Amino acid sequence: MGRIRIGMVGGGQGAFIGAVHRIALRMDDRFDLVAGCFSRDPENTKKTAEELSVDPSRAYATWEEMAEREAALPEDERIEAVSIVTPNHVHAGPAIGFMEKGFDVICDKPLCTTAEEAESIAAAVERTGRVFALTHNYTGYPMIREARDIVRGGRIGTVRKVYAEYLQGWLSTDLESGGHKQAAWRTDPAQSGPVGALGDIGTHAFNLLEHVTGLNVTSLFAVLHTFIEGRRLDDDDMVLLKLDGGASGTLCSSQVCYGRENGLMLRVFGTTGAIAWRQEHPNDLELTNEDGSVTTIRTATGVHGDASGSLARTPAGHPEGYLEGFANIYTAFARRLRGEDDLEDAHPTVHDGVRGVRFISACLESNAAGGWVDV
Amino acid sequence: MGRIRIGMVGGGQGAFIGAVHRIALRMDDRFDLVAGCFSRDPENTKKTAEELSVDPSRAYATWEEMAEREAALPEDERIEAVSIVTPNHVHAGPAIGFMEKGFDVICDKPLCTTAEEAESIAAAVERTGRVFALTHNYTGYPMIREARDIVRGGRIGTVRKVYAEYLQGWLSTDLESGGHKQAAWRTDPAQSGPVGALGDIGTHAFNLLEHVTGLNVTSLFAVLHTFIEGRRLDDDDMVLLKLDGGASGTLCSSQVCYGRENGLMLRVFGTTGAIAWRQEHPNDLELTNEDGSVTTIRTATGVHGDASGSLARTPAGHPEGYLEGFANIYTAFARRLRGEDDLEDAHPTVHDGVRGVRFISACLESNAAGGWVDV
Amino acid sequence: MGRIRIGMVGGGQGAFIGAVHRIALRMDDRFDLVAGCFSRDPENTKKTAEELSVDPSRAYATWEEMAEREAALPEDERIEAVSIVTPNHVHAGPAIGFMEKGFDVICDKPLCTTAEEAESIAAAVERTGRVFALTHNYTGYPMIREARDIVRGGRIGTVRKVYAEYLQGWLSTDLESGGHKQAAWRTDPAQSGPVGALGDIGTHAFNLLEHVTGLNVTSLFAVLHTFIEGRRLDDDDMVLLKLDGGASGTLCSSQVCYGRENGLMLRVFGTTGAIAWRQEHPNDLELTNEDGSVTTIRTATGVHGDASGSLARTPAGHPEGYLEGFANIYTAFARRLRGEDDLEDAHPTVHDGVRGVRFISACLESNAAGGWVDV
Amino acid sequence: MGRIRIGMVGGGQGAFIGAVHRIALRMDDRFDLVAGCFSRDPENTKKTAEELSVDPSRAYATWEEMAEREAALPEDERIEAVSIVTPNHVHAGPAIGFMEKGFDVICDKPLCTTAEEAESIAAAVERTGRVFALTHNYTGYPMIREARDIVRGGRIGTVRKVYAEYLQGWLSTDLESGGHKQAAWRTDPAQSGPVGALGDIGTHAFNLLEHVTGLNVTSLFAVLHTFIEGRRLDDDDMVLLKLDGGASGTLCSSQVCYGRENGLMLRVFGTTGAIAWRQEHPNDLELTNEDGSVTTIRTATGVHGDASGSLARTPAGHPEGYLEGFANIYTAFARRLRGEDDLEDAHPTVHDGVRGVRFISACLESNAAGGWVDV
Repeated sequence: MGRIRIGMVGGGQGAFIGAVHRIALRMDDRFDLVAGCFSRDPENTKKTAEELSVDPSRAYATWEEMAEREAALPEDERIEAVSIVTPNHVHAGPAIGFMEKGFDVICDKPLCTTAEEAESIAAAVERTGRVFALTHNYTGYPMIREARDIVRGGRIGTVRKVYAEYLQGWLSTDLESGGHKQAAWRTDPAQSGPVGALGDIGTHAFNLLEHVTGLNVTSLFAVLHTFIEGRRLDDDDMVLLKLDGGASGTLCSSQVCYGRENGLMLRVFGTTGAIAWRQEHPNDLELTNEDGSVTTIRTATGVHGDASGSLARTPAGHPEGYLEGFANIYTAFARRLRGEDDLEDAHPTVHDGVRGVRFISACLESNAAGGWVDV
Repeated sequence: MGRIRIGMVGGGQGAFIGAVHRIALRMDDRFDLVAGCFSRDPENTKKTAEELSVDPSRAYATWEEMAEREAALPEDERIEAVSIVTPNHVHAGPAIGFMEKGFDVICDKPLCTTAEEAESIAAAVERTGRVFALTHNYTGYPMIREARDIVRGGRIGTVRKVYAEYLQGWLSTDLESGGHKQAAWRTDPAQSGPVGALGDIGTHAFNLLEHVTGLNVTSLFAVLHTFIEGRRLDDDDMVLLKLDGGASGTLCSSQVCYGRENGLMLRVFGTTGAIAWRQEHPNDLELTNEDGSVTTIRTATGVHGDASGSLARTPAGHPEGYLEGFANIYTAFARRLRGEDDLEDAHPTVHDGVRGVRFISACLESNAAGGWVDV
Repeated sequence: MGRIRIGMVGGGQGAFIGAVHRIALRMDDRFDLVAGCFSRDPENTKKTAEELSVDPSRAYATWEEMAEREAALPEDERIEAVSIVTPNHVHAGPAIGFMEKGFDVICDKPLCTTAEEAESIAAAVERTGRVFALTHNYTGYPMIREARDIVRGGRIGTVRKVYAEYLQGWLSTDLESGGHKQAAWRTDPAQSGPVGALGDIGTHAFNLLEHVTGLNVTSLFAVLHTFIEGRRLDDDDMVLLKLDGGASGTLCSSQVCYGRENGLMLRVFGTTGAIAWRQEHPNDLELTNEDGSVTTIRTATGVHGDASGSLARTPAGHPEGYLEGFANIYTAFARRLRGEDDLEDAHPTVHDGVRGVRFISACLESNAAGGWVDV
Repeated sequence: MGRIRIGMVGGGQGAFIGAVHRIALRMDDRFDLVAGCFSRDPENTKKTAEELSVDPSRAYATWEEMAEREAALPEDERIEAVSIVTPNHVHAGPAIGFMEKGFDVICDKPLCTTAEEAESIAAAVERTGRVFALTHNYTGYPMIREARDIVRGGRIGTVRKVYAEYLQGWLSTDLESGGHKQAAWRTDPAQSGPVGALGDIGTHAFNLLEHVTGLNVTSLFAVLHTFIEGRRLDDDDMVLLKLDGGASGTLCSSQVCYGRENGLMLRVFGTTGAIAWRQEHPNDLELTNEDGSVTTIRTATGVHGDASGSLARTPAGHPEGYLEGFANIYTAFARRLRGEDDLEDAHPTVHDGVRGVRFISACLESNAAGGWVDV
């Protein structure tokens, strides 16, 4: 049926995550990027389109214009889906707008900045019946799927403890004052919403732990803190968690852990085993067996289940990384659009997004009140 | 001046830590074990003495008798120091008793089970002027000394974040019901005091983080939990910490993390660098440099300071472990007894013990009240 | 100037490396795959073209036809370059053929199967002035570029020892008898040439060590062995090496090291430092400093030189892998075609290919004679 | 039956390995060091005796005098065994001399410097019936015993490949000219015998691979080299090996691998699995299972066999190291002297020593002839 024609909102020159999305969508040759509103600045949009070999006539000044005019194109010409890679405060608008016009949506995380927006997006998904994928990209790693199958399949017994963390160091200084674009919008409440590190990376850790364990966090106690003077959002978070079934744990997200790159780590301990995974060496999954030995399961070796095998492009020993994990989300989205199989949970959905926003709200509330809050 | 004549209280057949202390005291040939009250059971004491080539006439039925009769021996014959390796509730009695009789004391941790006892011991140290060493043995690892020198020396800037954890899995089942001696006393409030995992291993993590950073924990929020039905003390703890100077962090101690052996880990992040250390591979210290690179410093390589060099017995690359770390505490104690140099902080002291007991009290209070408590 | 129009020879359904090349060429959006002769079987070529959205009229039955007809197309329509991903014995023909028609070539390794072919290809490169890139893809890893800069820049002093190895386990059994396509051609002298493991993976290790050190292997002593009964080519090799300037070392390549995936490892020791790198964790480069400490340099952290930074697509901590390394070779090829900078050694060339074939010849000769042979 | 009275030949002030032996013999409280001839220099012997609390009347000027006078003491007073820790050229004399006087012997490696000496020692063991233990200490590591049980027990099938290496960097410069005592005797043919690195560390790697696999090296091709100008013995060795049953492999020993500490590594690949072990992290044994997964077996976890469990002094997770491994050899020697169980292969014997000397001879012969030599 050929490649899926996709458009992009955001991702102009100077952006980070847009370029990542584009590599991801090219990886498995399932998409053609044919339209875009890449920036609020029309000049940037124009240049970006040129750089990306996007027809200038389909480089739009606003996402509203893009939705309008693309919808007016002949069915075999107009985009089939849109990728939204803007700062957090510009997710809800285009997400709902494009779904209303009949387009499927793949959107960067966190879903949005408020519970109200989250409900609106979820309602729009329900109402329009469109496919909505959220790029909690770390769930695209083969070894995370393996971990999920192991834990949900009961291989480590009943979950007791969960330790999740996402530690970075890049905001250890006041980068935003120096004009660093990524730092600037991520520490700006107007663009990021009410939280900083918690939304940017804490939600990844939260999503990962619920994804792998299949358990909901039921209540939490959160301490949000800002280390850098003058910074307007949290840059360091510590959260205690209680989960369904009596499990408990901690979730730490920080952007002032000097020198840490993308230290996303998940450890889950059950009654008969345990798993551990570190994003920076994503092809290794540590499984503690019931006899106490620790087995390293590696991408594409086919040692345990086969869920993970289908997510690797090359045989075992050819390391796949961040971009490949991201591409797995895009390819799952493509497969769902093409109806290639029933992939109920092949990619994160709006429900993951809603959970993430609830997590943020509960943390804010707990931090303000100094007590435990239900999620 | 020859070896130091030492006696031991506790450590009879079936005990664990007593044997460790004996290997530690033999390691550097600084002690002769010449007397003991190894058990409440005189038969056990007798057999243990025989096994250890201790003169039967100096195998005593009670520690009180031992203190009395050893003090009555000629000065060049009687013990010079005593090692106390009994369960926690039998630390204060002999510690004070032997000091009162003029003996120096080296005592297992935690110091004791109540704040009152802790104050009494501290007062006895003050009053008698005896040397009192506490075997927070992990501070005896060369790379912990190196870490301390690095952090206290300002090499990583001002400390912002501290993550300490000590995770074990051996109490993942109800071992104590099956007659497992170690499990039995450690989960028995009468012998262990008011806490289980927190006292057994949490205090090690606490001591290590204060030791390395030189910062005091000022307040904490603790959740103590018991996962195993019927168990009478906590087997899982999560503690949020605030430290002097604005740093914060987490301390997790658990004995139900399936499969974990002695997962004591310390990570400290400062404004210009960081350190990380894992007890199970104790000869590797990770130092994050200001330029973001990570240097592994190894025992006895003499790469950084020389504090750590003096604690290794063999050249770099000959791994030294738990017993050697323990022996370093004993040897520091010996050197202090012999006045070989001024070793202000060469071994943990009664003050470390008092801090540990305060930490336990604060955790209990916080857990009961559901709020932050000063330490 | 838009994307480069590229064609492909080989890589039909059932092939492995062709798909890898296609992901690599899409990664950075520098190429459009517009023509191909994907298989000796026209039906396979047709289906592959369809799958790849290649115009059926440009899916050719033979590479000769493809070269002929593409050359006849208008300049702004015809391919600009060709990617050759056939088994080893079908490299020389199309490589020379396409260069003669004015096309630039990127070709899989090893260059070819005989010294004569190698000389012919090198002569054709010289004669036609075309760009010729060889996909010794491991040189595309950022940390290999870093290693090269460090070693060639004198940072570890004069090289003394080189230990290179590439250990796999997938041919530990007689896979080829069972119809495994990859195993079949790689163990078939008619398709692979006179060597098996040595050509398939040994040449990668050889290329890597000459690439990183900048030193030539001057003589070698090789033992080629076949462990699996009935296999027609070597599956295990041990080679002792002498290098320019007095260095020496070992190179081991094996496909019967049970369980090993792609165990390509390079260690180089100099007079004042050392480096070590392992392909399965490619973002970590170990540098032994003159003071004996070991620093881990990580992709994109910008710690050392900047050669490696330009090869990463994402900030530090987002692991890049095998496909990204492969893509770096393609992108260097693209940049050279577009004249974007002078990239003397940005990708392996025909000279690397000639060296590889000489290495194979010398190993065969040494193995037969039981003595040292000059390279 | 009390501690074993032992004497020591060698190990005076300034020596390295003597102090290691003394820690090892104290570790498990099985020995009393009561006599010694610690140095050729009587003054050194006297001081060393004083330091070690050895009765001055039993500090002897020569080993001959020591053997003579100790043998003349009453049976319940004289030494029962002797530890020989002199440079290699002073092993054979005292070893044979003390056995002739009825003493059991534990001797440092390599056994001696010539094949003739080796035969004499072996003949003396045979003739006198004394116990003779050789401190190839690395066989005392629990995980090496585990590896031996796994490999010899057939768990990885038939052995195909063996890669052994022992890489150090401490002789990367001409240390011996600067008066470094350890460097001086180890590079002096008069004291070390005809080889340097090969005898000092290569024999450890050789012993380990024969110990773990239970296979004999049948022939070898060796290249011995000296990198440091003026050095009189090899400082770098590369050896190709053929073993019983068709296995093959490499053995590299070097003391000019800049920065390496004690890089002893053994990897063994069989037809259905593999093992890997690194001395610097000795409590981890990697086992590749038949399904391709890699299990880490750890000291004292009791995961696999129980051979290794009996060699650990503390529960899993308390790292044991070099000194504990050394002590295991001493304790096995003690148990054999006391007849506590039949410990056929609990410690390396004179036969290991004879194999080591043959290995050295074969390497020298191969290196001189430039061809393969039988071992």
